[in-house]
Amino acid sequence: MALAEVDTPALVVDLDALRRNIAAMADIAGAAGLALRPHAKTHKSAEIARMQVAAGAAGICCQTVSEAEAMAADGISDLLITNQVVGETKLRRLADLAGRVRLSVLVDDAGNVADVARHAAAVGSRIGALVEIETGDRRAGIDPVLAGELARRIAASRHLNFIGLQAYKGSTEHVIAASARRSSLEVVFAAVRAALASIDSPCPVVTGGGTGTAGLVHRGDPLTELQPGSYVFMDGNYALLDGAGFTPSLFLLATVLTRTVADRAMVNAGTKALCLEAGLPALPDHPGIIYARADDEHGRLEIGASARPLALGDRVRLIPANCDPTVNLHDWYVVVQGGVVVDVWPVTARGAVF
Amino acid sequence: MALAEVDTPALVVDLDALRRNIAAMADIAGAAGLALRPHAKTHKSAEIARMQVAAGAAGICCQTVSEAEAMAADGISDLLITNQVVGETKLRRLADLAGRVRLSVLVDDAGNVADVARHAAAVGSRIGALVEIETGDRRAGIDPVLAGELARRIAASRHLNFIGLQAYKGSTEHVIAASARRSSLEVVFAAVRAALASIDSPCPVVTGGGTGTAGLVHRGDPLTELQPGSYVFMDGNYALLDGAGFTPSLFLLATVLTRTVADRAMVNAGTKALCLEAGLPALPDHPGIIYARADDEHGRLEIGASARPLALGDRVRLIPANCDPTVNLHDWYVVVQGGVVVDVWPVTARGAVF
Repeated sequence: MALAEVDTPALVVDLDALRRNIAAMADIAGAAGLALRPHAKTHKSAEIARMQVAAGAAGICCQTVSEAEAMAADGISDLLITNQVVGETKLRRLADLAGRVRLSVLVDDAGNVADVARHAAAVGSRIGALVEIETGDRRAGIDPVLAGELARRIAASRHLNFIGLQAYKGSTEHVIAASARRSSLEVVFAAVRAALASIDSPCPVVTGGGTGTAGLVHRGDPLTELQPGSYVFMDGNYALLDGAGFTPSLFLLATVLTRTVADRAMVNAGTKALCLEAGLPALPDHPGIIYARADDEHGRLEIGASARPLALGDRVRLIPANCDPTVNLHDWYVVVQGGVVVDVWPVTARGAVF
Repeated sequence: MALAEVDTPALVVDLDALRRNIAAMADIAGAAGLALRPHAKTHKSAEIARMQVAAGAAGICCQTVSEAEAMAADGISDLLITNQVVGETKLRRLADLAGRVRLSVLVDDAGNVADVARHAAAVGSRIGALVEIETGDRRAGIDPVLAGELARRIAASRHLNFIGLQAYKGSTEHVIAASARRSSLEVVFAAVRAALASIDSPCPVVTGGGTGTAGLVHRGDPLTELQPGSYVFMDGNYALLDGAGFTPSLFLLATVLTRTVADRAMVNAGTKALCLEAGLPALPDHPGIIYARADDEHGRLEIGASARPLALGDRVRLIPANCDPTVNLHDWYVVVQGGVVVDVWPVTARGAVF
């Protein structure tokens, strides 16, 4: 099937660009002597996770228990949930899953450490635990100087393994200038060093980093593992970074539905097909045309005087500003190579927010 | 099962409030002598659509062919797609569906009228067509004075029925002051009158209006049918209107995952569980706490000094600012009555964007 025959809106992956991105990140991690644990929250696809593992990844990150369950059911056997897991139902599922795959989770609270251990004990599984430290984004994580106390509580449980530290700062990943991004990363490293100083046992893993900082972590930095997600697709926001170094591989294909005046067109892709929270999509093939605003099922294109005109039924490629929540709106990827559809992959963990 | 046992994030419907809203809108339409065709783009639920039909609705609106296919497969037999349908694959599906249910669609282009007729002819079905007129939002629709010409093209086809006009203006629905909202509606009515003057055949239906204007349409106004959607759930944005008159019935239930400092908490509901494009969610049960920002899987709550504190594991109810794209993120509704789960309904047309 030619791409031109695919019904829209459709989430399209350029297989060659995806493969290049996966190989490039494996090279970056290898050159810096870092383990690579790509984040499946971006693609939610067991197929892509398997490609990442085949390219040398140590395992995969997930953001929720249900995402990890979906990846485990599809053959991924080493999973880190980069999030706190709270609540009886979810802790039971976590403990069960730890009986089937190698599984770790983040903690930033002593009561939660006890809860995780209790559920693991109830089913006889062992769960890896990493202490998440506050890195300045005021989201999750404890004060780094308190990491040692939490590490001791983890080590004291027969049903938990102390794995190390999670040190991620989302805002660092999006600093445009590479030198300022590196400086922001050094603030994270300072927090890591403070945490390490408080820990009196071995700390095998310090995990963090992302698409924005992967190329900026060097030997000698206190990070042992990278957890980038977006590089596989290279969304519009990451493409803004200096030295971005990956290729856009994900597009939303949309169709012009109405074209009653010269300076605008409506396409069939609004907030139910694209997440716009982090910005509007780009139109790489249409200089002079911008995606100006969205309704639930419509996007308004504003067509500059110098732009190539659009006709009713024309199809346009949009690059999402933020791939992760856009992917989560769709049930499958249309996989293309040279303009031809070569496969359809399910979005394995679509909607797996719980 | 008690609501307290439901895993989160969960989309929760208060059945009593939902039923009150459905009855109230039926009363409003009846009192004004208007047909009621509620919009299924809000709920995407065949269960709720059947409740609306049982309360007297003439039929249901959908926004996409796949949404209409899902509603038809679940027993809804009179459907209006309030959108243009463009592209060979989708037009074929439209024509097929018209062989199974009473189906109408919007047009605003002569070439598209010919395309719709050609596909209906190919399978021997008849499709109802309404001319969408421009009402000032610059989204879709032709200049009202050109409606007659398009109506004649529709009437000339043996495979199309000219049903009437679509006259909807989204921005009108959200004008806060009731008197200004009515004034904005009168601009729409002026466009309708201009269109009617250009049409020399009977025009049985003029459809439009929504949750914001339903109570402001009177006998004598040039509208025959209302197509409100959001009233069933009454989202945060519509609740801001003067004289809103419906009750919030949809909540996202989320759990506090991390609570390391006194003035903030992170809940497990970000852009993959809530659409935030139209605004941040409200916390009706927690005065002094605001949902301040979202990441993909997290929402940050800022806790004022006078607010009741939150603990790890606490569950909070969030009212989405815009229900439609939030519902589209979820696979099912947890239906509650008096705090007890009485049913689980599938979001029948979730992801049906194509």
